[in-house]
Amino acid sequence: MRLRNVKNATEILNDSAYFAKEPSDIKGKWNEEFGDDQPIMLEIGMGKGDFLIGMAEAHPEWNFIGIEKYESVLVRAVQKLDELELKNVRVINIDAIDVHNIFDAEIDTIYLNFSDPWPKKRHYKRRLTYRDFLIEYDKIFKDNSKVEMKTDNDSLFESTLISLNDYGYKFDEVILDLWSTDKPNVKTEYEIKFSSKGYKIKYVRAHKNK
Amino acid sequence: MRLRNVKNATEILNDSAYFAKEPSDIKGKWNEEFGDDQPIMLEIGMGKGDFLIGMAEAHPEWNFIGIEKYESVLVRAVQKLDELELKNVRVINIDAIDVHNIFDAEIDTIYLNFSDPWPKKRHYKRRLTYRDFLIEYDKIFKDNSKVEMKTDNDSLFESTLISLNDYGYKFDEVILDLWSTDKPNVKTEYEIKFSSKGYKIKYVRAHKNK
Repeated sequence: MRLRNVKNATEILNDSAYFAKEPSDIKGKWNEEFGDDQPIMLEIGMGKGDFLIGMAEAHPEWNFIGIEKYESVLVRAVQKLDELELKNVRVINIDAIDVHNIFDAEIDTIYLNFSDPWPKKRHYKRRLTYRDFLIEYDKIFKDNSKVEMKTDNDSLFESTLISLNDYGYKFDEVILDLWSTDKPNVKTEYEIKFSSKGYKIKYVRAHKNK
Repeated sequence: MRLRNVKNATEILNDSAYFAKEPSDIKGKWNEEFGDDQPIMLEIGMGKGDFLIGMAEAHPEWNFIGIEKYESVLVRAVQKLDELELKNVRVINIDAIDVHNIFDAEIDTIYLNFSDPWPKKRHYKRRLTYRDFLIEYDKIFKDNSKVEMKTDNDSLFESTLISLNDYGYKFDEVILDLWSTDKPNVKTEYEIKFSSKGYKIKYVRAHKNK
Protein backbone atom coordinates (compact mmCIF):
# COMPACT_ATOMS: atom_id res chain seq x y z
CA MET A 1 0.00 0.00 0.00
CA ARG A 2 1.33 3.42 -0.88
CA LEU A 3 1.40 5.57 2.17
CA ARG A 4 0.42 9.16 1.87
CA ASN A 5 1.30 11.39 4.74
CA VAL A 6 -1.66 12.76 6.63
CA LYS A 7 -1.14 16.11 8.25
CA ASN A 8 -1.78 16.05 11.96
CA ALA A 9 -2.21 12.27 11.93
CA THR A 10 -1.00 11.97 15.51
CA GLU A 11 -3.34 14.71 16.60
CA ILE A 12 -6.34 13.14 14.85
CA LEU A 13 -5.62 9.78 16.48
CA ASN A 14 -5.15 11.26 19.93
CA ASP A 15 -8.38 13.22 19.65
CA SER A 16 -10.42 10.11 18.77
CA ALA A 17 -12.34 8.14 21.38
CA TYR A 18 -11.68 5.02 19.28
CA PHE A 19 -7.91 5.29 19.57
CA ALA A 20 -6.25 3.55 22.50
CA LYS A 21 -3.31 5.80 23.34
CA GLU A 22 -1.66 3.64 26.00
CA PRO A 23 -2.90 0.16 25.07
CA SER A 24 -0.40 -1.70 27.27
CA ASP A 25 -2.09 -0.11 30.29
CA ILE A 26 -5.28 -1.95 29.30
CA LYS A 27 -3.59 -5.36 28.98
CA GLY A 28 -5.83 -7.97 30.64
CA LYS A 29 -8.60 -5.38 31.11
CA TRP A 30 -10.05 -5.01 27.63
CA ASN A 31 -13.49 -6.21 28.67
CA GLU A 32 -13.45 -3.53 31.37
CA GLU A 33 -12.51 -1.01 28.69
CA PHE A 34 -15.54 -2.03 26.65
CA GLY A 35 -17.71 -2.25 29.75
CA ASP A 36 -19.17 -5.65 28.93
CA ASP A 37 -18.35 -9.36 28.68
CA GLN A 38 -18.68 -9.67 24.91
CA PRO A 39 -16.10 -11.71 22.98
CA ILE A 40 -13.19 -9.62 21.71
CA MET A 41 -12.22 -10.04 18.06
CA LEU A 42 -8.85 -8.74 16.88
CA GLU A 43 -8.00 -7.70 13.35
CA ILE A 44 -4.26 -7.58 12.74
CA GLY A 45 -3.40 -5.17 9.95
CA MET A 46 -6.76 -3.42 9.79
CA GLY A 47 -5.64 -0.91 7.17
CA LYS A 48 -8.29 1.68 6.47
CA GLY A 49 -10.80 -0.18 8.61
CA ASP A 50 -13.54 -1.25 6.19
CA PHE A 51 -13.66 -4.82 7.53
CA LEU A 52 -13.44 -3.78 11.19
CA ILE A 53 -16.18 -1.18 10.85
CA GLY A 54 -18.43 -3.42 8.74
CA MET A 55 -18.06 -6.29 11.20
CA ALA A 56 -18.63 -4.04 14.22
CA GLU A 57 -21.84 -2.74 12.66
CA ALA A 58 -22.99 -6.25 11.73
CA HIS A 59 -22.08 -7.74 15.11
CA PRO A 60 -22.88 -5.42 18.01
CA GLU A 61 -22.72 -8.54 20.20
CA TRP A 62 -18.93 -8.71 19.72
CA ASN A 63 -16.18 -6.22 20.47
CA PHE A 64 -13.58 -5.40 17.84
CA ILE A 65 -10.03 -4.21 18.18
CA GLY A 66 -7.95 -3.34 15.15
CA ILE A 67 -4.22 -2.95 15.07
CA GLU A 68 -2.30 -1.22 12.31
CA LYS A 69 1.38 -0.40 12.31
CA TYR A 70 1.20 2.52 9.89
CA GLU A 71 -0.14 5.66 11.55
CA SER A 72 -0.82 7.23 8.16
CA VAL A 73 -3.16 4.33 7.27
CA LEU A 74 -4.76 4.03 10.69
CA VAL A 75 -5.75 7.68 10.64
CA ARG A 76 -7.97 6.99 7.60
CA ALA A 77 -9.87 4.40 9.61
CA VAL A 78 -10.17 6.75 12.56
CA GLN A 79 -11.55 9.51 10.34
CA LYS A 80 -14.29 7.07 9.22
CA LEU A 81 -14.95 5.88 12.77
CA ASP A 82 -15.24 9.44 14.07
CA GLU A 83 -18.31 9.84 11.84
CA LEU A 84 -19.97 6.83 13.50
CA GLU A 85 -21.14 5.86 16.93
CA LEU A 86 -19.81 2.39 17.65
CA LYS A 87 -19.28 1.45 21.26
CA ASN A 88 -17.67 -1.88 20.34
CA VAL A 89 -14.54 -0.67 18.51
CA ARG A 90 -11.02 0.36 19.48
CA VAL A 91 -7.92 0.77 17.34
CA ILE A 92 -4.24 0.59 18.19
CA ASN A 93 -1.07 1.72 16.43
CA ILE A 94 1.30 -1.22 16.95
CA ASP A 95 3.08 -3.99 15.07
CA ALA A 96 1.67 -7.54 15.05
CA ILE A 97 4.69 -9.02 16.79
CA ASP A 98 3.93 -6.89 19.88
CA VAL A 99 0.42 -8.17 20.57
CA HIS A 100 1.54 -9.98 23.72
CA ASN A 101 2.41 -6.60 25.26
CA ILE A 102 -1.12 -5.32 24.72
CA PHE A 103 -3.29 -8.35 25.41
CA ASP A 104 -3.44 -11.06 27.99
CA ALA A 105 -5.53 -14.20 27.35
CA GLU A 106 -8.59 -12.24 26.26
CA ILE A 107 -8.97 -12.54 22.46
CA ASP A 108 -11.61 -14.78 20.91
CA THR A 109 -10.67 -14.70 17.21
CA ILE A 110 -7.90 -13.16 15.11
CA TYR A 111 -8.71 -11.88 11.62
CA LEU A 112 -6.00 -11.50 9.01
CA ASN A 113 -7.26 -9.79 5.85
CA PHE A 114 -5.06 -9.23 2.83
CA SER A 115 -1.91 -9.26 4.89
CA ASP A 116 1.35 -8.35 3.18
CA PRO A 117 2.29 -11.53 1.22
CA TRP A 118 6.05 -10.88 1.57
CA PRO A 119 6.62 -12.74 -1.72
CA LYS A 120 10.42 -12.86 -1.56
CA LYS A 121 11.76 -16.12 -0.19
CA ARG A 122 14.07 -14.41 2.28
CA HIS A 123 11.10 -12.56 3.81
CA TYR A 124 8.82 -15.53 4.52
CA LYS A 125 9.33 -15.18 8.26
CA ARG A 126 7.54 -11.84 8.10
CA ARG A 127 4.26 -13.38 6.96
CA LEU A 128 1.65 -13.00 9.66
CA THR A 129 0.94 -16.74 9.68
CA TYR A 130 4.59 -17.74 10.05
CA ARG A 131 5.15 -20.00 13.05
CA ASP A 132 6.70 -17.24 15.20
CA PHE A 133 3.53 -15.20 14.89
CA LEU A 134 1.30 -18.19 15.65
CA ILE A 135 3.26 -18.65 18.88
CA GLU A 136 2.65 -15.00 19.81
CA TYR A 137 -1.05 -15.29 19.00
CA ASP A 138 -1.41 -18.28 21.33
CA LYS A 139 -0.49 -16.02 24.25
CA ILE A 140 -3.46 -13.74 23.71
CA PHE A 141 -6.29 -16.18 22.98
CA LYS A 142 -8.85 -16.53 25.77
CA ASP A 143 -9.92 -20.11 25.05
CA ASN A 144 -9.09 -21.98 21.88
CA SER A 145 -6.99 -20.35 19.19
CA LYS A 146 -9.20 -19.20 16.32
CA VAL A 147 -7.91 -17.62 13.14
CA GLU A 148 -9.73 -16.43 10.04
CA MET A 149 -7.80 -15.27 7.01
CA LYS A 150 -8.60 -14.04 3.55
CA THR A 151 -6.23 -13.09 0.80
CA ASP A 152 -6.01 -12.77 -2.96
CA ASN A 153 -2.41 -14.02 -2.89
CA ASP A 154 -1.86 -17.69 -3.80
CA SER A 155 1.57 -17.96 -2.25
CA LEU A 156 0.51 -16.46 1.07
CA PHE A 157 -2.53 -18.73 1.15
CA GLU A 158 -0.44 -21.83 0.39
CA SER A 159 2.10 -21.03 3.09
CA THR A 160 -0.68 -20.17 5.54
CA LEU A 161 -2.34 -23.57 5.06
CA ILE A 162 0.99 -25.32 5.54
CA SER A 163 1.89 -23.25 8.60
CA LEU A 164 -1.50 -23.59 10.34
CA ASN A 165 -1.55 -27.33 9.63
CA ASP A 166 1.99 -27.78 10.88
CA TYR A 167 1.29 -25.83 14.08
CA GLY A 168 -1.69 -28.05 14.93
CA TYR A 169 -4.61 -25.96 13.72
CA LYS A 170 -7.66 -27.79 12.36
CA PHE A 171 -9.42 -26.32 9.37
CA ASP A 172 -13.10 -25.55 9.82
CA GLU A 173 -13.45 -24.08 6.34
CA VAL A 174 -11.21 -23.72 3.31
CA ILE A 175 -12.62 -21.74 0.37
CA LEU A 176 -10.71 -21.08 -2.84
CA ASP A 177 -13.20 -18.59 -4.29
CA LEU A 178 -15.01 -16.82 -1.49
CA TRP A 179 -17.05 -14.57 -3.76
CA SER A 180 -18.53 -17.59 -5.55
CA THR A 181 -20.15 -18.74 -2.31
CA ASP A 182 -23.09 -17.27 -0.40
CA LYS A 183 -21.04 -16.94 2.78
CA PRO A 184 -21.60 -13.53 4.45
CA ASN A 185 -18.49 -11.48 3.76
CA VAL A 186 -17.64 -7.96 4.87
CA LYS A 187 -15.46 -6.76 2.03
CA THR A 188 -12.48 -4.46 2.22
CA GLU A 189 -11.66 -1.70 -0.28
CA TYR A 190 -8.63 -3.69 -1.37
CA GLU A 191 -10.70 -6.88 -1.76
CA ILE A 192 -13.24 -5.22 -4.08
CA LYS A 193 -10.44 -3.79 -6.20
CA PHE A 194 -8.54 -7.05 -6.59
CA SER A 195 -11.55 -9.28 -7.00
CA SER A 196 -12.80 -7.06 -9.83
CA LYS A 197 -9.42 -7.61 -11.51
CA GLY A 198 -10.16 -11.34 -11.52
CA TYR A 199 -8.18 -12.43 -8.47
CA LYS A 200 -9.97 -15.12 -6.50
CA ILE A 201 -10.38 -14.39 -2.80
CA LYS A 202 -9.15 -17.32 -0.73
CA TYR A 203 -10.43 -17.92 2.80
CA VAL A 204 -9.55 -20.20 5.69
CA ARG A 205 -11.04 -20.54 9.16
CA ALA A 206 -9.12 -22.69 11.62
CA HIS A 207 -8.95 -23.46 15.30
CA LYS A 208 -6.57 -25.10 17.71
CA ASN A 209 -7.63 -26.53 21.03
CA LYS A 210 -5.72 -25.28 24.07
CA MET B 1 -15.77 -39.68 -17.94
CA ARG B 2 -17.96 -41.08 -20.68
CA LEU B 3 -17.41 -44.76 -20.98
CA ARG B 4 -17.33 -46.31 -24.37
CA ASN B 5 -17.56 -50.04 -24.53
CA VAL B 6 -14.46 -51.73 -25.84
CA LYS B 7 -14.99 -55.01 -27.62
CA ASN B 8 -13.07 -57.84 -26.06
CA ALA B 9 -11.94 -55.63 -23.17
CA THR B 10 -11.67 -58.60 -20.82
CA GLU B 11 -9.69 -60.54 -23.38
CA ILE B 12 -7.28 -57.65 -24.01
CA LEU B 13 -6.70 -57.27 -20.27
CA ASN B 14 -6.16 -60.97 -19.69
CA ASP B 15 -3.71 -61.15 -22.57
CA SER B 16 -1.56 -58.32 -21.21
CA ALA B 17 1.54 -58.96 -19.09
CA TYR B 18 0.78 -55.67 -17.30
CA PHE B 19 -2.59 -56.81 -16.03
CA ALA B 20 -2.71 -58.56 -12.66
CA LYS B 21 -5.52 -61.07 -13.01
CA GLU B 22 -5.65 -62.31 -9.44
CA PRO B 23 -4.16 -59.41 -7.51
CA SER B 24 -5.29 -60.65 -4.09
CA ASP B 25 -2.96 -63.64 -4.59
CA ILE B 26 -0.06 -61.18 -4.71
CA LYS B 27 -1.01 -59.37 -1.49
CA GLY B 28 2.13 -58.82 0.59
CA LYS B 29 4.32 -60.07 -2.27
CA TRP B 30 4.30 -57.18 -4.73
CA ASN B 31 8.05 -56.64 -4.51
CA GLU B 32 8.47 -60.34 -5.42
CA GLU B 33 6.11 -59.75 -8.35
CA PHE B 34 8.36 -56.92 -9.57
CA GLY B 35 11.50 -58.88 -8.74
CA ASP B 36 13.23 -56.03 -6.91
CA ASP B 37 13.11 -53.95 -3.73
CA GLN B 38 12.10 -50.68 -5.33
CA PRO B 39 9.46 -48.49 -3.65
CA ILE B 40 5.95 -49.21 -4.89
CA MET B 41 3.82 -46.23 -5.89
CA LEU B 42 0.08 -46.68 -6.28
CA GLU B 43 -2.20 -44.58 -8.45
CA ILE B 44 -5.86 -44.89 -7.48
CA GLY B 45 -8.13 -44.15 -10.42
CA MET B 46 -5.45 -44.33 -13.11
CA GLY B 47 -7.94 -43.80 -15.96
CA LYS B 48 -6.27 -44.13 -19.33
CA GLY B 49 -2.84 -44.34 -17.75
CA ASP B 50 -1.01 -41.24 -18.99
CA PHE B 51 0.27 -40.33 -15.53
CA LEU B 52 1.20 -43.90 -14.58
CA ILE B 53 3.05 -44.52 -17.84
CA GLY B 54 4.79 -41.12 -17.82
CA MET B 55 5.92 -41.59 -14.23
CA ALA B 56 7.08 -45.17 -14.84
CA GLU B 57 9.17 -43.97 -17.77
CA ALA B 58 10.60 -41.04 -15.79
CA HIS B 59 11.28 -43.14 -12.68
CA PRO B 60 12.60 -46.61 -13.50
CA GLU B 61 13.87 -46.68 -9.90
CA TRP B 62 10.27 -46.94 -8.63
CA ASN B 63 7.55 -49.51 -9.29
CA PHE B 64 4.07 -48.36 -10.24
CA ILE B 65 0.71 -50.00 -9.76
CA GLY B 66 -2.44 -48.45 -11.13
CA ILE B 67 -5.95 -49.35 -10.13
CA GLU B 68 -9.04 -48.47 -12.12
CA LYS B 69 -12.57 -49.66 -11.45
CA TYR B 70 -13.85 -49.27 -15.00
CA GLU B 71 -12.66 -52.09 -17.25
CA SER B 72 -13.57 -50.08 -20.36
CA VAL B 73 -11.19 -47.29 -19.26
CA LEU B 74 -8.44 -49.57 -18.00
CA VAL B 75 -8.27 -51.35 -21.34
CA ARG B 76 -7.22 -48.06 -22.99
CA ALA B 77 -4.24 -47.87 -20.65
CA VAL B 78 -3.37 -51.50 -21.29
CA GLN B 79 -3.46 -50.94 -25.04
CA LYS B 80 -0.88 -48.14 -24.58
CA LEU B 81 1.23 -50.23 -22.19
CA ASP B 82 1.27 -53.18 -24.58
CA GLU B 83 3.18 -50.99 -27.04
CA LEU B 84 5.88 -50.33 -24.45
CA GLU B 85 8.39 -52.33 -22.48
CA LEU B 86 8.11 -51.26 -18.88
CA LYS B 87 9.12 -53.77 -16.25
CA ASN B 88 7.99 -51.51 -13.39
CA VAL B 89 4.25 -51.32 -14.11
CA ARG B 90 1.19 -53.38 -13.20
CA VAL B 91 -2.49 -52.50 -13.41
CA ILE B 92 -5.51 -53.84 -11.55
CA ASN B 93 -9.26 -53.68 -12.15
CA ILE B 94 -10.67 -52.93 -8.66
CA ASP B 95 -12.40 -50.24 -6.65
CA ALA B 96 -10.43 -47.97 -4.29
CA ILE B 97 -12.25 -49.17 -1.18
CA ASP B 98 -10.86 -52.68 -1.76
CA VAL B 99 -7.15 -51.82 -1.67
CA HIS B 100 -6.67 -53.58 1.66
CA ASN B 101 -7.58 -56.88 -0.05
CA ILE B 102 -4.81 -56.44 -2.60
CA PHE B 103 -1.99 -54.88 -0.62
CA ASP B 104 -0.38 -55.43 2.72
CA ALA B 105 1.91 -52.77 4.20
CA GLU B 106 3.91 -52.36 1.00
CA ILE B 107 2.94 -49.07 -0.64
CA ASP B 108 5.23 -46.04 -0.52
CA THR B 109 3.01 -43.28 -1.96
CA ILE B 110 -0.57 -43.00 -3.18
CA TYR B 111 -1.35 -40.72 -6.13
CA LEU B 112 -4.85 -39.36 -6.67
CA ASN B 113 -5.18 -37.51 -9.97
CA PHE B 114 -8.38 -35.81 -11.03
CA SER B 115 -10.51 -38.09 -8.91
CA ASP B 116 -14.27 -37.86 -9.26
CA PRO B 117 -15.22 -34.72 -7.27
CA TRP B 118 -18.64 -36.10 -6.27
CA PRO B 119 -19.98 -32.54 -6.09
CA LYS B 120 -23.34 -33.36 -4.53
CA LYS B 121 -23.42 -32.94 -0.77
CA ARG B 122 -24.99 -36.35 -0.18
CA HIS B 123 -22.10 -38.01 -2.06
CA TYR B 124 -19.15 -36.47 -0.13
CA LYS B 125 -18.35 -39.80 1.50
CA ARG B 126 -17.44 -41.17 -1.93
CA ARG B 127 -14.56 -38.71 -2.39
CA LEU B 128 -11.27 -40.59 -2.39
CA THR B 129 -9.89 -38.39 0.40
CA TYR B 130 -12.86 -38.87 2.68
CA ARG B 131 -11.84 -40.17 6.12
CA ASP B 132 -13.03 -43.74 5.45
CA PHE B 133 -10.65 -43.97 2.51
CA LEU B 134 -7.75 -42.47 4.47
CA ILE B 135 -8.28 -45.24 7.05
CA GLU B 136 -8.10 -47.89 4.31
CA TYR B 137 -4.98 -46.31 2.81
CA ASP B 138 -3.21 -46.47 6.19
CA LYS B 139 -3.44 -50.26 6.06
CA ILE B 140 -1.38 -50.51 2.88
CA PHE B 141 1.42 -47.99 3.49
CA LYS B 142 4.81 -49.53 4.15
CA ASP B 143 6.25 -46.76 6.33
CA ASN B 144 4.71 -43.34 6.68
CA SER B 145 1.50 -42.50 4.87
CA LYS B 146 2.25 -40.37 1.81
CA VAL B 147 -0.39 -38.93 -0.49
CA GLU B 148 -0.10 -36.71 -3.56
CA MET B 149 -3.18 -35.29 -5.19
CA LYS B 150 -3.94 -33.03 -8.10
CA THR B 151 -7.30 -31.80 -9.28
CA ASP B 152 -8.93 -28.97 -11.19
CA ASN B 153 -11.94 -29.06 -8.87
CA ASP B 154 -12.04 -26.40 -6.12
CA SER B 155 -14.54 -28.19 -3.94
CA LEU B 156 -12.68 -31.51 -3.99
CA PHE B 157 -9.42 -29.70 -3.20
CA GLU B 158 -10.98 -27.80 -0.30
CA SER B 159 -12.48 -30.94 1.23
CA THR B 160 -9.23 -32.83 0.67
CA LEU B 161 -7.22 -30.23 2.58
CA ILE B 162 -9.73 -30.31 5.43
CA SER B 163 -9.85 -34.10 5.49
CA LEU B 164 -6.07 -34.64 5.36
CA ASN B 165 -5.55 -31.97 8.03
CA ASP B 166 -8.22 -33.47 10.26
CA TYR B 167 -6.80 -36.98 9.91
CA GLY B 168 -3.34 -35.86 11.01
CA TYR B 169 -1.53 -35.44 7.72
CA LYS B 170 1.13 -32.73 7.47
CA PHE B 171 1.35 -30.76 4.25
CA ASP B 172 4.70 -30.83 2.49
CA GLU B 173 3.48 -28.76 -0.44
CA VAL B 174 0.26 -26.95 -1.31
CA ILE B 175 0.09 -25.39 -4.78
CA LEU B 176 -2.95 -23.54 -6.13
CA ASP B 177 -1.70 -23.24 -9.70
CA LEU B 178 0.62 -26.13 -10.50
CA TRP B 179 1.19 -25.13 -14.10
CA SER B 180 2.51 -21.70 -13.03
CA THR B 181 5.38 -23.38 -11.18
CA ASP B 182 8.45 -25.14 -12.55
CA LYS B 183 7.67 -28.31 -10.60
CA PRO B 184 8.12 -31.42 -12.78
CA ASN B 185 4.63 -32.63 -13.64
CA VAL B 186 3.57 -35.65 -15.67
CA LYS B 187 0.31 -34.45 -17.16
CA THR B 188 -2.79 -36.48 -17.87
CA GLU B 189 -4.98 -36.15 -20.95
CA TYR B 190 -7.75 -34.78 -18.75
CA GLU B 191 -5.37 -32.28 -17.12
CA ILE B 192 -4.22 -30.83 -20.43
CA LYS B 193 -7.81 -30.45 -21.59
CA PHE B 194 -9.05 -28.72 -18.45
CA SER B 195 -6.00 -26.55 -17.92
CA SER B 196 -6.33 -25.25 -21.48
CA LYS B 197 -9.91 -24.25 -20.60
CA GLY B 198 -8.52 -22.02 -17.85
CA TYR B 199 -9.00 -24.29 -14.84
CA LYS B 200 -6.13 -24.02 -12.37
CA ILE B 201 -4.57 -27.34 -11.40
CA LYS B 202 -4.36 -27.63 -7.62
CA TYR B 203 -1.79 -29.90 -5.95
CA VAL B 204 -1.09 -31.17 -2.46
CA ARG B 205 1.60 -33.47 -1.12
CA ALA B 206 1.17 -34.65 2.45
CA HIS B 207 2.49 -37.23 4.86
CA LYS B 208 1.53 -38.73 8.18
CA ASN B 209 4.00 -40.43 10.49
CA LYS B 210 3.10 -43.94 11.60
